[in-house]
Amino acid sequence: MTDLIYEQPLNEKIRSYLRIENLALQLQQHAEHDHQYQCFNPLFSLAELTERCDYRTDILKDIEKQIQLISQWRTHSSVDNDQVDKLTDRLIALKSPLQTQERIGCSLKRDKFLTSLRQRFNMTGAYCNFDFPQLHFWLGKDWQYRQRDINNWLAEYHPLLAPIMLLLELIRATEDFRLSQAPVGFYQGNSSLPLSLIRVKINSDQNCYPTVSGNRNRYAIHFVDFDLHRHTCETIDFSLATCS
Amino acid sequence: MTDLIYEQPLNEKIRSYLRIENLALQLQQHAEHDHQYQCFNPLFSLAELTERCDYRTDILKDIEKQIQLISQWRTHSSVDNDQVDKLTDRLIALKSPLQTQERIGCSLKRDKFLTSLRQRFNMTGAYCNFDFPQLHFWLGKDWQYRQRDINNWLAEYHPLLAPIMLLLELIRATEDFRLSQAPVGFYQGNSSLPLSLIRVKINSDQNCYPTVSGNRNRYAIHFVDFDLHRHTCETIDFSLATCS
Repeated sequence: MTDLIYEQPLNEKIRSYLRIENLALQLQQHAEHDHQYQCFNPLFSLAELTERCDYRTDILKDIEKQIQLISQWRTHSSVDNDQVDKLTDRLIALKSPLQTQERIGCSLKRDKFLTSLRQRFNMTGAYCNFDFPQLHFWLGKDWQYRQRDINNWLAEYHPLLAPIMLLLELIRATEDFRLSQAPVGFYQGNSSLPLSLIRVKINSDQNCYPTVSGNRNRYAIHFVDFDLHRHTCETIDFSLATCS
Repeated sequence: MTDLIYEQPLNEKIRSYLRIENLALQLQQHAEHDHQYQCFNPLFSLAELTERCDYRTDILKDIEKQIQLISQWRTHSSVDNDQVDKLTDRLIALKSPLQTQERIGCSLKRDKFLTSLRQRFNMTGAYCNFDFPQLHFWLGKDWQYRQRDINNWLAEYHPLLAPIMLLLELIRATEDFRLSQAPVGFYQGNSSLPLSLIRVKINSDQNCYPTVSGNRNRYAIHFVDFDLHRHTCETIDFSLATCS
């Protein structure tokens, strides 16, 4: 068994970022390999999340914040200023695609094929060809054709997905994993710095998974035995990173 | 491009059978190849459909009806009686697994892992590891382990899936495809025999898919242009089978 990483967001914004990142990763997989109709589930979830909330203001603020933070690195003698410049340029380049009049992904609402599928896609067991003859037709097309479609749909969300993925990468990089122990399957900690993400790395051999709760200054980790479906009484070895 | 077959059920029972067959085929694929968490969607859909309605009485009636029909074949001189016996035995064998006290699939409700996932599986974009740490743990297990789990879950529904698949096979066999033409993209037909399933086979080169409506004695087929999203004005060549 291998090490698994579990992440717990400590605020709503990071929770949404992680959800969107997860959908983006799923869609990327579906754009690389032919998984039939499976691509529509993450695509429509992404559409729903981005319609419910416009993340652009949050992302633009976070980009600015990161640019500020990174500029402070220059004062450290050990920092490679070339790398700092490159990262700053990358962040700056992500700003203008977000500054559009229309909400990201909005143009897909005008795609008749997608709209007709989306209306009934949540119906239980509804992928029969009598539910969606147009889907059955589309699935009969060459993978190259469908792949182009999927990539086009994915590209619509790119202005949102690219910065979210980079921002999460930077947040994850704020702290390295350090070895920790949870006696009787429980661990708690606190931080004077405001935290946004708790990361737990644990080897599956211990047959446990963590459930994390907390806010920006305090957090608690309970380890649950997978087979017994309840809190373990064992001492659990794990690695922890508390990212801000 | 290849020939695609579209099917339209003409009553609620066949509609349900087709939905369940479709879910069973999806689950079989997920039991053969590692598609990560994708297996849960058809599994939970199957659970929902079979909780909403107990199909056992319908299936048992249909098995009896088929046994009756098949016994009439014996009067035809061209029929191989050995084959008739074999098919009859197959149908009889499917009866007793349906005659259980408990509804099919009911025991999976007592599976704590599945129950915990199912409760929140319809949440938009909810496959993050903070939504379901237990799923993340399960996905970290070897494919052999997960495959055994999936096969066990699938086996629970086998008493329902096996007869439905055989019944649909027999219904589909009631008529062979015959060449037909739809001038101005429209075709209608009627039948003195009560029909249950309309099957349309069409080559994708014509860039059209059929939408079928009807009841047991009458049906109409409209062909829709995939790119234009509206009824085609072309003459469409297709093959038709009207099954009873």
